[in-house]
This record gives sequence, structure tokens and C-alpha cells, in this order.
Amino acid sequence: MMGRKLIVDIEGGITAPKGVKAAGVSCGIKRDKLDLALVASDRPAAVAGVFTTNVVKAAPVLLCQKRLKTGRFSALVANSGNANACTGERGLRDAEAMAALAAKVLGCPLHEVFVASTGVIGRPLPMAKVREGIRLAARHLSSDGGPLAAKAIMTTDTFPKEAAVAFEWRGRRIVLGGMAKGAGMIAPKMATMLCFLATDGRGAAPSLGRALRHAVEKSFNRITVDGCMSTNDTVLLFANGCSDAPPLEGLGLRLFQEALEAVTSTLARMIVKDGEGATKLVEVLVRGAGSGKEAEMAARAVAASLLVKTAFFGEDCNWGRVMAALGASGVRLQADLIDLFIDGIQVVKGGRGLGESKEREASERMRRREFALLIDLRQGRGEARLLTTDLSEAYVRLNAAYRT
Amino acid sequence: MMGRKLIVDIEGGITAPKGVKAAGVSCGIKRDKLDLALVASDRPAAVAGVFTTNVVKAAPVLLCQKRLKTGRFSALVANSGNANACTGERGLRDAEAMAALAAKVLGCPLHEVFVASTGVIGRPLPMAKVREGIRLAARHLSSDGGPLAAKAIMTTDTFPKEAAVAFEWRGRRIVLGGMAKGAGMIAPKMATMLCFLATDGRGAAPSLGRALRHAVEKSFNRITVDGCMSTNDTVLLFANGCSDAPPLEGLGLRLFQEALEAVTSTLARMIVKDGEGATKLVEVLVRGAGSGKEAEMAARAVAASLLVKTAFFGEDCNWGRVMAALGASGVRLQADLIDLFIDGIQVVKGGRGLGESKEREASERMRRREFALLIDLRQGRGEARLLTTDLSEAYVRLNAAYRT
Repeated sequence: MMGRKLIVDIEGGITAPKGVKAAGVSCGIKRDKLDLALVASDRPAAVAGVFTTNVVKAAPVLLCQKRLKTGRFSALVANSGNANACTGERGLRDAEAMAALAAKVLGCPLHEVFVASTGVIGRPLPMAKVREGIRLAARHLSSDGGPLAAKAIMTTDTFPKEAAVAFEWRGRRIVLGGMAKGAGMIAPKMATMLCFLATDGRGAAPSLGRALRHAVEKSFNRITVDGCMSTNDTVLLFANGCSDAPPLEGLGLRLFQEALEAVTSTLARMIVKDGEGATKLVEVLVRGAGSGKEAEMAARAVAASLLVKTAFFGEDCNWGRVMAALGASGVRLQADLIDLFIDGIQVVKGGRGLGESKEREASERMRRREFALLIDLRQGRGEARLLTTDLSEAYVRLNAAYRT
Repeated sequence: MMGRKLIVDIEGGITAPKGVKAAGVSCGIKRDKLDLALVASDRPAAVAGVFTTNVVKAAPVLLCQKRLKTGRFSALVANSGNANACTGERGLRDAEAMAALAAKVLGCPLHEVFVASTGVIGRPLPMAKVREGIRLAARHLSSDGGPLAAKAIMTTDTFPKEAAVAFEWRGRRIVLGGMAKGAGMIAPKMATMLCFLATDGRGAAPSLGRALRHAVEKSFNRITVDGCMSTNDTVLLFANGCSDAPPLEGLGLRLFQEALEAVTSTLARMIVKDGEGATKLVEVLVRGAGSGKEAEMAARAVAASLLVKTAFFGEDCNWGRVMAALGASGVRLQADLIDLFIDGIQVVKGGRGLGESKEREASERMRRREFALLIDLRQGRGEARLLTTDLSEAYVRLNAAYRT
């Protein structure tokens, strides 16, 4: 059973696995801040990716989607401060040029270099700075460069987001590490969620892809800050086999899935916790829905409601807003069956409030930095869980004043 | 052609038509404010209604829906300060009791009395105060009581909302007037949109219903403040025939439709203008969509985006957020065909920004209290128009602090 244990809290982020080097440098896209990250694998790696479903896709997303068809990864170059989105033909040429220069300085095939950008939409990339950054980063690549790379992809994030875990399989230690940025909004122009994951395990692109889609579904697709979907969202996973473990299969693949979900869930939680202007991290749990799908619809409706989110900010147990959001969510329900609980305190039973003293008790719990809202629809067995934030005046201030 | 002219800006609101009396009184549901309105028709009237599609419906909504089956209207009693929602069996009994007392004091059949409530969710109505209010209001009913009634249905509204128009048909003057409340949010617990309309024209319930649904579709369904849907939304229209004009049909019905849309559009615009914390009134116009339905989806996605609304507040021509909202809206589009204009200033052409000087010019226009955002998708001929507000820090403050 020893092999089943996940070793968590490993240092090093994306450079925790063997054979991965990274660097984070400042090249002047942003003022006096790290703004360009380079990640390179010692061996060509299998790769999988998940991207924004926004029809308006940034140039680097289009480039990554094209690269994925070959399924091989040698390096990634990512900049912050400029999203290279809504930049037309020129944006595509710039993304290709970033990849080409990285391929040249690293001596790897062009079609194995991936690109990501995050920041302001609609401005051309300052390519002279980007070129200088790539050359500089290549000189600084190191096997403990993960933390600097994690800083270089930040935009309005207030802290870098890294995680790494390991597990033993067939006598080998396999490490999986990654970094993410997201910050305020799961949205364009500022945060734009990015996540890069590396493992020294060995796996084929199709099975990596399946594992990644599962893990994203359970982590990044289960968080909401402002419900906005970015033009740049990118999640990449590469596996370089530098652990010299045999290819992942059977139990090994299941252990890998567990490790992957541990890392993506940790990073997803960090993204919500660092939500723009967020003062609360709230877990919305719906149970008793007619189906899993309906549970998810109900949870999303509540987690996205401005009225619910401002009540979280106000630490006000304003359960009528939750009832109204549920009623408008489109799921099957009967108002007079619904039970609501805040951190275990029941405030609504059978659709009716249990009185002001219970509400006061629940409002006390809402003063915590983190709390849970449990909704039982008592219709069936469908369950879903989402992480969300409150909506604060600081969110409005940040997003109104971003460019002025 | 004289008969086709609409006479607008008539005083009196819901009491502008002949044979309509109203009163607004204070009975102590709210502190020192008008909080109960009574509207009565001299003759039993035909009636039509449109209600919230929220599955969680307040008791007065359920009562109105039941009453509509008879299709006759004699009176309406409406209170603010308490929504009588999520109040279970007791709530239904209270709504019936309000109607019963109004029927008794006015001497009209119980099944011709309608009820509406708006305010806090989940608290039982203070029925002793409500009863006192109904008796008091009945004593104050008058044919110029419309303005006081309009004040009595306000919650966080900062001004009362009334409109009335008239037209000539077959030698008779037919008047249509109404009042609404909405204020901050098209949402529960605070604002909850209500609208009551009266005419001294004569019409059958089915044709009134069709006219009303059309008018609501073009007015109240074309505004958004925070995208939240209330448990109490109610629009009622009654026609008492006191103009002694013949029943509306043919041209008369078309004139009536025009009058109705003029009144509902005026009231809808007032609701958005008085949106909670709103500092901007923005018209979002989408054209060139693949269909009318898609145009509406695109307009709603943009008008509801928190990032777009905070940019409106910040007077920042942050068009990348509009592009991202469009891309996530689910409508057919090609990013490189899209054109965007702010009050006539083009800022995006073929999906690409026209530069910072155009953005500055557009940001100047955004300093106005009202401006328009025109989106041309260049896919087809679908068009849609929506009114929305910005999202301000004051919105968050109001909604976080509502009960504390």
C-alpha cells in the first residue's frame, strides 16, 4: 500500500519534476516586474492541453492548439502584461516569432515550442522587449527556477501559485508540479487563467489528455470569480519521462490521476482565494438535485448571483437571495422542500426561514474568511460543489480603474 | 391622421384614465414612509398580467395568477417593505386576507381584487399594520391619488415612476396610465419590479394579454441591472371602459398597442435610470447577428458582464472586455469581422482596435450620463437593443449593507 500514498507539499513548482528547467525574468513589458517565463524540458515530452471555449481566442491559444496536433513538447514561453489577443494577423506572427526565437536559443524543434500571453487585450506585443526577455531567460534556465517563473506569469495576482506532489510506482518516484495565475478574474485583460503542469512520469498524449480533462473539470471548471470567460485561458501538461519510470498505465495511471487532481485543485483554490477584491472564499455545495447536471446548474446560479455575492461581502445571511437565485436557475425544485445551511447552521427548512436568531448565528459564521453554503433541494441524488468569492467594492474599484 | 397621434406626458399616472382611483398611505411596515397603495376601478375591468418566471414565486404572485383566470379586476392592494415571499402557507393566507379586507371595504367581489408585495423576503407580513393601511387607503381613494400610490410602492427607488398617454379613436379620447417600481435590482428583497397599468379603453382580456406580452417583451424584458430575477415581478393591466369608447379592435387596437409600448418603455427606462448605484444608462445595440435571437443573446452577454459594467463605471473604453463577452455568448461570430462604436466613435474595426487616440475619444463620450454601445457582428441581419447600467462601488455598498 506504500505506493498509494501521495507525497504532498513538495517545493519547486513546475521545476519539481526531474528534467524540467525554468526561468522568470523582467524584460520591460511591465514596469520593474518579472514578466517573461521560460520552461524547458531536458527531453522532448508528451503534451496535452485544455483551452478557453471563448470563440474569440488569443493568438497564443491558436498557436498552442496547432502545436498540440504534433503532441510533443520541448519548451514554453509565456509573458504577462500583454495578452496578444484581438491583434489579428500581426498577433499570430508575433506568437510564432516568440516560439521561433525560443526554439533557436534552446536548440529545439520549432513545432515543440508552446506560447502563452496574459495581460492587456488589443495591443501589439512589444516584440523587441519580448526577444530580449527570451534571450535573457534562456541564460537563466535552472532546475530551481520554478518559483521565479510562477512570479513572471502573475498579473493582478497578489501571490504566486505553485504546487507539486509525488508518488511511488514500480520502485520509482514520479513527481508532478505546476504553476498557475488567475488572480482576479477568470477573464480577459487582467488575469486570464493560465496553468502549466509538468511531470517526470512517462505517458502518451491521449492518456495525458484524458487525465487532464478530468482534472480540469474537477478543479478549474469548479471555480468562479466573476463568471467572465477569457480569450487566453490555457492549461498545458507535459510528461518528459525523466523519472525513468515505465509508461503510466493501470494503477500507475490512477495514481497519476490522483496526483494531477491534487495539484490542479490546490492551484484552483489558490486562484479563488486570490480573487480580485475577494474577502471571502465560499464553498457552495448543492445536494438532493434531480441530477448531477442540475446540481451544477443550481450551484453556478447561486455562486454567480451578484446579490448573493454582495451578501457574502456584507456577512449578511440574506437567504432570500439564495432562494431567488435557485428559482431562476432552471433546475427542477419545489420551494417548500429546500433546506439551507451556513457552515452547519440551518437557516431555512422546507423553504421557510428558521427565524432571526438562526440568521444571526449564521451571520457570525459568515465573518470567517472561509465558509460553506449547503443547499439541499431534496429532489434526488444529484450533487455538485463550487468555490466562489464575495463581490466587494474593491473588485469594482480594481476593474473600473485598471487602465486609467 | 389626427387620430393616430399619441398625446404623451399626461399627468396622473395610474389615475390618469377615467374611472380609476388610487391612494398611497403609511401604515408602519416601513418607518415613516408610504408603504401601502390601493387602486380601484369604478367599473369592473378586463385584466391581463405577466409574472416572474422564477420557480420560487411569492404568495401575492400565486394569488394574482389564480385571480387572472376569472379575468375581472376591481381593485389592487400593494405594499412595500415586505415581499411576502418564502412565507409558506401563512403567506398565502395573508395575501388572501389582504384581498378579502380590500373587497370588504370597497364593496367589490373578492375574486376581483389583486395583491402585490415588495420588500424583504422570508418575513411574515405584519398583518395588523396591513389591515390598518387598507382601511386608511380606502378612505383616501381619489382620482388624483396616482402619484401617492406610485410613492407607496417604492423600495430603494430614489424617485417614483409614472407615465400616461392618450389617443383619439372613433371620437373618444382613450387614456392609458401606469406606475412602476424597480430601483436597484430586478431582484428580490429590495426592488422587485412591479408595474400596474390602467386604461379607460375597453378591451377583452385575451387581446389585452397579447398586447401586454408584446409590450413587456419590448420594454421590461429589454432592461438589465444586475441580471437577478425576482420572486415577485408582476405587471398588471386593466381596462375599465370608462372612456365609453367602443371596444378596441383593428386600428384602435394598434393605437392602443402603441400607447401601451410608449408607457412601458418610459417606465422601463426610468427603472434602469434609477438602477441601484447606477451612474450610467447604456444602450447596447447589436446588429448584424445571425438572427434576432442571437442578437439578443449577444446583447445580454455584454450588458450583463461584470467586466464590461465596471469599465462603464470607470469610463474606460476597454473594448477587449466587450470582445471577450461576445466570444463567450454562444452566438455565431468571427472575431475578425466585428466592429464596435461608442456613441458613434468607432474603436474596433474587423476585430482590431483602431488605436489609443480613438479609445481616448470614446472614453470622453463615456463620461456622459447616457451613451450607446453599438456592436456590428457582420454575420447577418439580426438586431437587438437592451438598456443596462454600469456597476459601481455604490451598488456593492447598497447590497452588502441592506439589512445590517
